[in-house]
Amino acid sequence: MATIKDVANLAKVSVATVSRVINNAENVSDKTRETVKKAMEKLNYYPDANARALSQQNSKTIGIVVADVSDPFFGAMVSTVEKVASKTGHFLLIGNGYHNEQQEYNAITHLIEHRCSSLVVHAKMLPDNKLVRLMEQVPGMVLINRSLKNFEKRCISLDDRYGSYLAVKHLIQHGHTKIGYLCSNHEISDSSDRLQGYKDALKEYNLEINSNYIAFSSPNEQGGEQAMMALLERNREITAIACYNDSMAAGAMSVLYDNDIKIPTDVSIIGFDDLLIARYLHPKLTTIRYPLHTMAEQAAELALRLAKGEEPPSNLINIFTPTLTKRYSVNKIG
Amino acid sequence: MATIKDVANLAKVSVATVSRVINNAENVSDKTRETVKKAMEKLNYYPDANARALSQQNSKTIGIVVADVSDPFFGAMVSTVEKVASKTGHFLLIGNGYHNEQQEYNAITHLIEHRCSSLVVHAKMLPDNKLVRLMEQVPGMVLINRSLKNFEKRCISLDDRYGSYLAVKHLIQHGHTKIGYLCSNHEISDSSDRLQGYKDALKEYNLEINSNYIAFSSPNEQGGEQAMMALLERNREITAIACYNDSMAAGAMSVLYDNDIKIPTDVSIIGFDDLLIARYLHPKLTTIRYPLHTMAEQAAELALRLAKGEEPPSNLINIFTPTLTKRYSVNKIG
Repeated sequence: MATIKDVANLAKVSVATVSRVINNAENVSDKTRETVKKAMEKLNYYPDANARALSQQNSKTIGIVVADVSDPFFGAMVSTVEKVASKTGHFLLIGNGYHNEQQEYNAITHLIEHRCSSLVVHAKMLPDNKLVRLMEQVPGMVLINRSLKNFEKRCISLDDRYGSYLAVKHLIQHGHTKIGYLCSNHEISDSSDRLQGYKDALKEYNLEINSNYIAFSSPNEQGGEQAMMALLERNREITAIACYNDSMAAGAMSVLYDNDIKIPTDVSIIGFDDLLIARYLHPKLTTIRYPLHTMAEQAAELALRLAKGEEPPSNLINIFTPTLTKRYSVNKIG
Repeated sequence: MATIKDVANLAKVSVATVSRVINNAENVSDKTRETVKKAMEKLNYYPDANARALSQQNSKTIGIVVADVSDPFFGAMVSTVEKVASKTGHFLLIGNGYHNEQQEYNAITHLIEHRCSSLVVHAKMLPDNKLVRLMEQVPGMVLINRSLKNFEKRCISLDDRYGSYLAVKHLIQHGHTKIGYLCSNHEISDSSDRLQGYKDALKEYNLEINSNYIAFSSPNEQGGEQAMMALLERNREITAIACYNDSMAAGAMSVLYDNDIKIPTDVSIIGFDDLLIARYLHPKLTTIRYPLHTMAEQAAELALRLAKGEEPPSNLINIFTPTLTKRYSVNKIG
């Protein structure tokens, strides 16, 4: 395999110059950079990124931990962070936590072992004390979708409870009083906060909270199908459904269609997240917008800043507010 | 920061033993392993993965290049490869090629610089000669969704042309003769092969190929909307639509609904890929199944084998055959 000396010889420059080109240093002319890169290509020379990471104790990678990259919500998060990474000359290392405490911990420590100095972490199962310890050790670690006491400035999250309140209030304002809720069965704050928002809205309008109107399942399409079937088995009077997320709404809609229940004529439905799928369901889904792109971008930029020892920007938003996106899945009753 | 010696002292073992635990060597008792791991955790000691990669010239990572991880097709591919990686104690490094020759090249070389000895690469824009050169240098590099001359045993692809032929034949067998085609505008073999399959089926049944029945756009939901509008502007006689993929079908269906054209009563539609969304469109989408999970799993396992210098398994499938998944979006005409 070719060495850095071979490259320097072929390009007729010093080894130090080749090294400067590899490290994207600024004091190299474009012409020299071009010559060196051509020599590297000709000799099939690939500088060892691990050696560079070792000598600089910085791997030029951003690490991201998500629950599951194949979930479209996390896919969008990863894609946004990747764009920030590639714009700033970083590579992206991804770990999956699979909503499991030990796997979340393993994913984070693997990224630390790879000397990712900037980390964007979505971890909902790790208890606060373990997370605090990791946050103390890695100054460039930022939490997304979670707020941790004493580290609020390094957390970017959404007011889930308010979002769900908005959704249910929208249904009530359309005359609905018998409103079902499809809840996630993951034991994380997102689930309990969104459920609480549903209850907040009912209370505000003096509507009864009926536990038979609430069904729990996995926060995906199949879960939405199961939860919707459970609701239908128990009630025929429900006229509107609020959902934990758009994926559950998609599953629920498929069950409603299978039972010849028309949307929104017979039953209104509202989602949460405003993923791409919301615009391609029929009817197009009214939902609560999760500003995921903005939040993930901010989290990645914050992680890069903190890793360099800089302070968070003074105008940083740490808790975002969800908004309503009206489409065609909610009707006035009667 | 704690050193390996501190860990050895606390755990009352030798540095060599700590090293064996870090490298998951087998000649360590469970009890010792546990003691060492506890000491590491207590001291916040994280072995440097880059140092290990450098000394072993193997980073224990699988590299994957996809077009765009936020596309659900590629999300599913990444997720499958990640499962193989995590099962075999590897970490996953992801690069995005964004359907651009230079970005594909950069993504692959970055992974090589990180000393990923196993690579699963989806790169459709890089010309054959550049790809050949990379394949020669990295024995553990496997291509997915592309077949490269002289490297057929290291390629896992799908017979796209046959899949599209199957789809259109299905429409013809339901009595349709005026069949539109929503084609991807990416200049890659997937696009031309699937378009060719459409033409193959028409020819087999002596149906005219009418260029006004074919519209090109991006292979996503928005592209499906645009292409469908273009078809509607030019033709009112079309009774069935075959689509490049399910995402385009979802976009097309949304345009048909906006125009009060009923599916499948007025127009039948068929997708390609059988992504999750196909089951949650209304009506549920009849489509062509892309065995992505099996293909990605095989590609990852093959890359790991080849990186160890082993031969491909003798029963390896290099070209997969798509199959038809019947749902409710195709009707008999009239």
